[in-house]
Amino acid sequence: MAQSSVNNGVNVEALLAAREALKDAPQAAKFTWRASCRWQNGTHSQTKIQGFHGLGEEQKHKTEFSFDADHPEVFASEDLGITPIEYVLVGLASCLTAGVASVAQNRGIQLRSVEAKLEGTMDLQGILGIDGDVRNGYDDIKVTFNIDADASKKDIEAIVAQSQKRSAVYDVLTNPVNVSVQVA
Amino acid sequence: MAQSSVNNGVNVEALLAAREALKDAPQAAKFTWRASCRWQNGTHSQTKIQGFHGLGEEQKHKTEFSFDADHPEVFASEDLGITPIEYVLVGLASCLTAGVASVAQNRGIQLRSVEAKLEGTMDLQGILGIDGDVRNGYDDIKVTFNIDADASKKDIEAIVAQSQKRSAVYDVLTNPVNVSVQVA
Repeated sequence: MAQSSVNNGVNVEALLAAREALKDAPQAAKFTWRASCRWQNGTHSQTKIQGFHGLGEEQKHKTEFSFDADHPEVFASEDLGITPIEYVLVGLASCLTAGVASVAQNRGIQLRSVEAKLEGTMDLQGILGIDGDVRNGYDDIKVTFNIDADASKKDIEAIVAQSQKRSAVYDVLTNPVNVSVQVA
Repeated sequence: MAQSSVNNGVNVEALLAAREALKDAPQAAKFTWRASCRWQNGTHSQTKIQGFHGLGEEQKHKTEFSFDADHPEVFASEDLGITPIEYVLVGLASCLTAGVASVAQNRGIQLRSVEAKLEGTMDLQGILGIDGDVRNGYDDIKVTFNIDADASKKDIEAIVAQSQKRSAVYDVLTNPVNVSVQVA
């Protein structure tokens, strides 16, 4: 199959060109992503995202995106959005999926469909302070891909493995990140 | 100031009752959060969230929530949503903010406004495979709270510190999580 006939909608040439350009301009590769959150009431908050910094200058998304988070009714909240810890699953799912599309394009493999199911398990005895030995967050996250593509199972597994190897969200979950929290 | 006059919209009594109930039923404290992601085109995906498991049975949010993720135009994508790694900031911001409201309520402190600004820095030399020593994800995340409340700066800082101590998203970023990725 000729690679030129493969179109997953990812502009791999532009990404490879960016890689070459950034090799010679490492400062431009430094990105800062930003979010601005405002408490609404109870456990309900709204977070807005638009601007970021990268390629040596200020950038912004085409529109401002806004996200409501809340706790569900079983926690005596109003359920006006998904929970904060579910947003982590959104990030992981979309990061690995974008990676699958990009790697498949680079390898000349046509995708027909990609679905990922995620499950994160968490023991509330941590966050509620019942048991100090139980962590607050996920103890385990499972991601299962269902991929329909012009490729063998082995090739598909290799694409997923490469996506995982280069995933920003997979990295921040499986390795520690410095997080500092302060009051202005 | 009488604690009864404080209303941040958090039902702390219900949370404390839940803590007591779960002490005697640790199995009910085990939660599973789920997400289902479908690739759209290029780096664009859509993730849906509604059902979860907890308190010993299937639960669901009042509505299904849907989230688009994409890469921005500077990465030759269509910018049809925020990036996956920005979703992590949404989760962290909302987790710490819900915690601030809950802890303040529990301590009898009236909040007037809570805002959090987040910045996550990341060197694209990692994700682009330019330098194997550079990580894929954030090397550093800074969270800065601006809080207007009936409390001293010291009390406000203590509320934020307690929120951080019990934050599920702060935990999964600062400590490693087991993440397994497989192809069905």
